[in-house]
Amino acid sequence: MLLKTLFHLHLSFLLIFTSQAAVQDFCVGDLSAPEGPAGYSCKSPAKVTVNDFVYSGLAGVGNTSNLIKAAVSPAFSAQFPALNGLGLSIARLDLAPGGVVPMHTHPGGSELLLVVDGSICAGFISSANKIYFKTLYKGDLMVFPQGLLHFQVNAGKGPALAFVSFSSPSPGLQILDFALFANDLPTELIHDTTFLDEAQIKKLKGVLGGTN
Amino acid sequence: MLLKTLFHLHLSFLLIFTSQAAVQDFCVGDLSAPEGPAGYSCKSPAKVTVNDFVYSGLAGVGNTSNLIKAAVSPAFSAQFPALNGLGLSIARLDLAPGGVVPMHTHPGGSELLLVVDGSICAGFISSANKIYFKTLYKGDLMVFPQGLLHFQVNAGKGPALAFVSFSSPSPGLQILDFALFANDLPTELIHDTTFLDEAQIKKLKGVLGGTN
Amino acid sequence: MLLKTLFHLHLSFLLIFTSQAAVQDFCVGDLSAPEGPAGYSCKSPAKVTVNDFVYSGLAGVGNTSNLIKAAVSPAFSAQFPALNGLGLSIARLDLAPGGVVPMHTHPGGSELLLVVDGSICAGFISSANKIYFKTLYKGDLMVFPQGLLHFQVNAGKGPALAFVSFSSPSPGLQILDFALFANDLPTELIHDTTFLDEAQIKKLKGVLGGTN
Amino acid sequence: MLLKTLFHLHLSFLLIFTSQAAVQDFCVGDLSAPEGPAGYSCKSPAKVTVNDFVYSGLAGVGNTSNLIKAAVSPAFSAQFPALNGLGLSIARLDLAPGGVVPMHTHPGGSELLLVVDGSICAGFISSANKIYFKTLYKGDLMVFPQGLLHFQVNAGKGPALAFVSFSSPSPGLQILDFALFANDLPTELIHDTTFLDEAQIKKLKGVLGGTN
Amino acid sequence: MLLKTLFHLHLSFLLIFTSQAAVQDFCVGDLSAPEGPAGYSCKSPAKVTVNDFVYSGLAGVGNTSNLIKAAVSPAFSAQFPALNGLGLSIARLDLAPGGVVPMHTHPGGSELLLVVDGSICAGFISSANKIYFKTLYKGDLMVFPQGLLHFQVNAGKGPALAFVSFSSPSPGLQILDFALFANDLPTELIHDTTFLDEAQIKKLKGVLGGTN
Amino acid sequence: MLLKTLFHLHLSFLLIFTSQAAVQDFCVGDLSAPEGPAGYSCKSPAKVTVNDFVYSGLAGVGNTSNLIKAAVSPAFSAQFPALNGLGLSIARLDLAPGGVVPMHTHPGGSELLLVVDGSICAGFISSANKIYFKTLYKGDLMVFPQGLLHFQVNAGKGPALAFVSFSSPSPGLQILDFALFANDLPTELIHDTTFLDEAQIKKLKGVLGGTN
Repeated sequence: MLLKTLFHLHLSFLLIFTSQAAVQDFCVGDLSAPEGPAGYSCKSPAKVTVNDFVYSGLAGVGNTSNLIKAAVSPAFSAQFPALNGLGLSIARLDLAPGGVVPMHTHPGGSELLLVVDGSICAGFISSANKIYFKTLYKGDLMVFPQGLLHFQVNAGKGPALAFVSFSSPSPGLQILDFALFANDLPTELIHDTTFLDEAQIKKLKGVLGGTN
Repeated sequence: MLLKTLFHLHLSFLLIFTSQAAVQDFCVGDLSAPEGPAGYSCKSPAKVTVNDFVYSGLAGVGNTSNLIKAAVSPAFSAQFPALNGLGLSIARLDLAPGGVVPMHTHPGGSELLLVVDGSICAGFISSANKIYFKTLYKGDLMVFPQGLLHFQVNAGKGPALAFVSFSSPSPGLQILDFALFANDLPTELIHDTTFLDEAQIKKLKGVLGGTN
Repeated sequence: MLLKTLFHLHLSFLLIFTSQAAVQDFCVGDLSAPEGPAGYSCKSPAKVTVNDFVYSGLAGVGNTSNLIKAAVSPAFSAQFPALNGLGLSIARLDLAPGGVVPMHTHPGGSELLLVVDGSICAGFISSANKIYFKTLYKGDLMVFPQGLLHFQVNAGKGPALAFVSFSSPSPGLQILDFALFANDLPTELIHDTTFLDEAQIKKLKGVLGGTN
Repeated sequence: MLLKTLFHLHLSFLLIFTSQAAVQDFCVGDLSAPEGPAGYSCKSPAKVTVNDFVYSGLAGVGNTSNLIKAAVSPAFSAQFPALNGLGLSIARLDLAPGGVVPMHTHPGGSELLLVVDGSICAGFISSANKIYFKTLYKGDLMVFPQGLLHFQVNAGKGPALAFVSFSSPSPGLQILDFALFANDLPTELIHDTTFLDEAQIKKLKGVLGGTN
Repeated sequence: MLLKTLFHLHLSFLLIFTSQAAVQDFCVGDLSAPEGPAGYSCKSPAKVTVNDFVYSGLAGVGNTSNLIKAAVSPAFSAQFPALNGLGLSIARLDLAPGGVVPMHTHPGGSELLLVVDGSICAGFISSANKIYFKTLYKGDLMVFPQGLLHFQVNAGKGPALAFVSFSSPSPGLQILDFALFANDLPTELIHDTTFLDEAQIKKLKGVLGGTN
Repeated sequence: MLLKTLFHLHLSFLLIFTSQAAVQDFCVGDLSAPEGPAGYSCKSPAKVTVNDFVYSGLAGVGNTSNLIKAAVSPAFSAQFPALNGLGLSIARLDLAPGGVVPMHTHPGGSELLLVVDGSICAGFISSANKIYFKTLYKGDLMVFPQGLLHFQVNAGKGPALAFVSFSSPSPGLQILDFALFANDLPTELIHDTTFLDEAQIKKLKGVLGGTN
């Protein structure tokens, strides 16, 4: 009889906490529903399976057959919606020999880099314009505080692999060169606000598809 | 004339701040609308009445006619939607003589227990595996930091009553025994990850309705 | 060939980060969509233009032809939806000679006042019932911590102009006199909870349109 | 041999996590050390005992032998330092027959009232100047959103008892009458910013000890 | 007798809330004490006066006799310690004819610009590399979301004046040119991570005092 | 002359922002100074070097010569103080063949697991007592929402390596078996709050060094 009573207790607890999606352990993003300042709307818990919590999109080597010989593959909440609301995300970084992740910022989060293979020269610049950079080897960690300019360069002769974690499910990414030279921001305005020579600006606009 | 002017001022303030639901003093949860990481969507302020801010669901004694001789009645945002977005909630705890709230955690909030009647032995275990427990009497408070295992046991001969406040409108509740033994987590996996004997696991699965 | 490759890189980055509105730099409020505890739903990024980020509603002098000879014009997220989710807002404060912003609070944010023209006597009262007030001149700043009663009075002979910034896109505004005397809160209840004489209460109810 | 190895594992885990106070499960406030925006400094974990987590200061009936026939006894982080950093607190409210908690605000948190004995008429006023009030009975809950004016009045013939939880360890308390009339804020300034008659102001200043 | 009792009540409230600095309405920064992730330690409330809450450092016109014909004068928590922990700050922006605030970011907060005099062409670049810019006139507001590159240029023939509010008491400031060219970051590394020509880099290093 | 002027501008910016540690880009933890609810006090920026931002403690293989054939090596703020205040951390997980990370929770953060080598069966249990588990292979990610019970088991024949990121610099770790059986929590109380048989409890206490 004790067993039966305990079983009833079990049922009553379940009734309390599963009707009305009462307990929000997680909020797997529903990318088709309204988005708010805190993230995506939640997929109905009844439709969530273990596959929502697993993502295999970073398993393959990124395609580094490009000028910078690098590939950045994000697993942010837009790619891996289970991260929505959970305060963290990750990306894979492949660097062929000579590969570079150009100077960039993440407006919405700090970054923690882990070198998995090869060696990487990485650094960031503080608001006091001080530069902090170092060559990192397999197993090394380096942290880049939120919103500051930073970069990564393959420092070895072979390929390098790193994973970078973020303190936000959607940290953003602003790559300096694309921000300045890959849109229709007028050359004169770029010159006035960066002191770069117009010839230099036009050269990079040509490469990156910028106009004006 | 002064009076009339001030009245106009009044109207103009009201116009500014009631058109467009401009001032979000509260966000009474609309359980039928999209939920996000920060909670439920807001019910239209125009439809909110004082009854939204009052909840009587904890007034009655919980049914303790069960094996653990205890009843936990939550007033979380799912039961009391006015709490949505306000950062706190509460639950009622009835303990018959011999009653126990088994070892459990609240993944999303700290808990503050207030003994209203009787006496309760309560405790929690820290990440450093140190146990903090004590017998509490009427009027005593005890705080259980977020996410740590804790329990409450009736320490007297009569019934005990307590109210527990939480630092979240939806703190969650994970009861250890139900988590381990009331689902289809394979016995072997439980054994491997808890070191409990298989016979022990199967006995509790039998009681709590677990399979595999 | 290098240029072409870099251009491809550019495209691939854009593909990653513009499909699915992957990077939430901002969340311009869609006032017609569901609102949650963290603010309004986001307008589709594809429909956002520079005009969403610009607001001219505070450019004109407020109408101070009223009893208090003052005008408060808010640019909160309800008026300027680009502020939604960004943690700040602003309002314009015009004070004719003799003008007053009566005792009030902002339940949801701290306030930073900047005197742009004229002089203003401003102050706040702490929880310890200590009064902090001072006459401010053009260019002076004063900060009013969240939720505390405060006021501003024109301290000069000409008009005064100030702008007040808030630490929330929707800080709220509760003006003491309107809260007490401009609704149907019964006179007796006001008397019991404020110790004000009934005659005083009825006089101000008459001015401000309160009933009961 | 297995046992011995597991024991070693145990030791190594403890070494990792107890040296350097590595895991911050809690931060019991050290009231004698520096305080910051997030609360008090933490007492050394090694000196923390179960008694830090238990507080008996609300067990006794408050002294209601005063004009308002009411007593408010807080258990905020200053009285109960274990609450420091945990995001919640509580207070006891005793109301003799005719007792009143005058109109007040908590600048730093929302409040959840639980009636334990008797009946209480409680209410709050929104930023839109709408009044929400109701008579509550034993077991009823009412929530008061952050920063808004609210009050509690004994609605029965006998004493009433309530406990109020807050969404902050240090929510603050600003009682309207004390804020206006119990300090040296000049009568003229009060008049100008509240429209109250000078005679009314001076009368209440007389009662509450205000000057000027 | 009633008055005397109420006065006693007053005293007892004061005793509760002023002993132990129990109510943290504010945390004026003590720049000489330990700083933590949430800001500076608090100055003792007993030593705080109204002058702590007032700052006149932005009253004067900034010195624009420099190459960029601009001056930025911050009132962050380091200059105006009363802002510590309150979630907002402000700066004054003076632009002589031809003046420019070069491309920069604030790693820790969003910015709301108010044009007080003259006209300003202002803009920001999103993570999707889209440019949002417009010429603003007296009274116009423009918001720049957290962490994104943005700039301001005097668009008129006379001087321009603006005030910029931030959603943080310490938003930081990273000016692109100083970050890249005013330190010892090696020219080769700048070239590799920005694609700028070495001649261009060395030219700007010469101007800004950079080495290597 | 232009150059000289710009250089002066540079100096004046540096003066503004480096005197008084005005811009808090980071707060490298000073483990010897007071700790607060938001983390450690900050090391003086003047003493911070690039080495503070780099950590090599996870480079080596953990010692899995123990009963669970597993090693967990944390890089939390206590081991890697640059993470203080930045909202993220990481740990290395080595699993020999047959290795297991027993059932545990992190009270203060969500976890994101990345399999670097081998295969791992990982899972978590929700508040609704639903089990989500799956076998993960090299390159797979799985996320474990904050505060929920979860585990990892080597699912292959060779060793497995994973790195786990957390949404907090100090997420905590409560291993179920150590919490229940490795301290002086009385056997009877464990029995009453977990329904485990006393013999089972005593057996595991024997292994893990628990008393009472």
